[in-house]
Amino acid sequence: MADWIAVDWPCAGGTAPRAWAIGPEGPLAEATLDLQGNEAFGDALLRLVEPWLDDATDVIVAGAADPSAARPVPCPPLDRPVVAAAPDPRMRLHLVPGLRQNRPTPDLTQGAEVRIAGLIAAEPQFDGILCLPGPHTTWAHLSAGEVVSFQTFLTGSLLPLLSDEAPSATVGEDFLQAAEEARSRPERLAARLAQVRAEQLLGSLDEDAAQSRRAGLLIGAELAAARPWWLGQQVVVAGPSPLAEQYLAALAAQGVTARPRAESELVLAGLVRARTLLKGNA
Amino acid sequence: MADWIAVDWPCAGGTAPRAWAIGPEGPLAEATLDLQGNEAFGDALLRLVEPWLDDATDVIVAGAADPSAARPVPCPPLDRPVVAAAPDPRMRLHLVPGLRQNRPTPDLTQGAEVRIAGLIAAEPQFDGILCLPGPHTTWAHLSAGEVVSFQTFLTGSLLPLLSDEAPSATVGEDFLQAAEEARSRPERLAARLAQVRAEQLLGSLDEDAAQSRRAGLLIGAELAAARPWWLGQQVVVAGPSPLAEQYLAALAAQGVTARPRAESELVLAGLVRARTLLKGNA
Repeated sequence: MADWIAVDWPCAGGTAPRAWAIGPEGPLAEATLDLQGNEAFGDALLRLVEPWLDDATDVIVAGAADPSAARPVPCPPLDRPVVAAAPDPRMRLHLVPGLRQNRPTPDLTQGAEVRIAGLIAAEPQFDGILCLPGPHTTWAHLSAGEVVSFQTFLTGSLLPLLSDEAPSATVGEDFLQAAEEARSRPERLAARLAQVRAEQLLGSLDEDAAQSRRAGLLIGAELAAARPWWLGQQVVVAGPSPLAEQYLAALAAQGVTARPRAESELVLAGLVRARTLLKGNA
Repeated sequence: MADWIAVDWPCAGGTAPRAWAIGPEGPLAEATLDLQGNEAFGDALLRLVEPWLDDATDVIVAGAADPSAARPVPCPPLDRPVVAAAPDPRMRLHLVPGLRQNRPTPDLTQGAEVRIAGLIAAEPQFDGILCLPGPHTTWAHLSAGEVVSFQTFLTGSLLPLLSDEAPSATVGEDFLQAAEEARSRPERLAARLAQVRAEQLLGSLDEDAAQSRRAGLLIGAELAAARPWWLGQQVVVAGPSPLAEQYLAALAAQGVTARPRAESELVLAGLVRARTLLKGNA
């Protein structure tokens, strides 16, 4: 049976919660949850992890803590997870608090903190920027094992709302040209999105090319606003495909050689770190 | 019974189609349609107008014509509506073609053309800008009874997607301050939207204020890109509430005294003009 259960519970954008049953040697099994309309958090969590529950199994969840529990930066990405009311007596539930920032802009992480902890666990000396693309993209400045500051963008939440199609993995000329247009003239974003739609309706642009351009425009506009986060910086990118590849390509076009890392590896390493803190072996 | 039936069929953003039964003296009755998931256009149209159908009743629909039928600007906003296959033998169906533009940017109207025609019918000497806020906002430059050029923005489509709440009518300090921020620094749009979300989650911003700020940010960013369309121009604004009031307030903050007009009045006047063209009395 599992020693404990690690859960990544993204708060945004229809990303499916994921869980791992962890044994003495590492993950034994993995599961994802098909979220249903108005299901309560406790009910949905139980549905996800129930097959692995034994007697008093520790379940550690990232991304679902109350915003009021968030810890102010600068600070290490994780502290001891917080005990919460469990939906089942076989479960001992612990929530990983997010990070909050008051200056320069109010901001909050809901899951980025475990990914950051995963990178620091793998590369304790890392000094630079971690970019986490997703429904909410987070840019975090890490130094000496701490989160110095961070900034969230809603770019990834806007993209699927502009089209019914699944995102295309293309990072070709359509994507790169649109990214550069929006980076250099970000104020024209809403107009250029309308133009893509018009060209598509008028038959001069197919769905794949339109999708690539929309992604390029949104990511390019984000790069314009996130300039201090990547210009002259060491950048690591970790996120779902094809979004991560698109950020890497857009950064490369600006002369920034960002380094990719697998997101699930960071999540898992971060949750293992949270478990260590829970057991008091920090 | 009705002489004919006028229909406004917006292509975007969940706006409900509207129909008017028109008699010799003007509108006799009005109806709106609750659109259902995948219902075919013909079936939905029949459901909307069936109570008013007689023998061979003319039904003139704006917003639903094939994009390939669109007429290139510069040109008058309307030409004779195009005959289409009717879903019922009691109906003679005519679709109002949209307008298309190739330069400076590819663009297409799907309903804006009847609103423009309505304004020109009411004010034949109008020379200036008509701003039509909605799921797709259109800015059109009108002169000597023709559409010189136009530009569409998807601003209004993005707004409801960022929140489950109905849009707030507030155009107070939250709205105006956000609009000015985004107008002067449009490249920070995605970051400022994330900040509004964070402040809301952290409890320092209530839902009404957050909604007002989101609207201000999106409309302010549009004003930044649409600057040539309002700076030093005579502007008329016609659109649904509270969006129209928000555009008027944001323009007023830039020193532009835009003049409001009722959108339904423009739609109806434009469809009456289309009917005149159909009957060959132009």
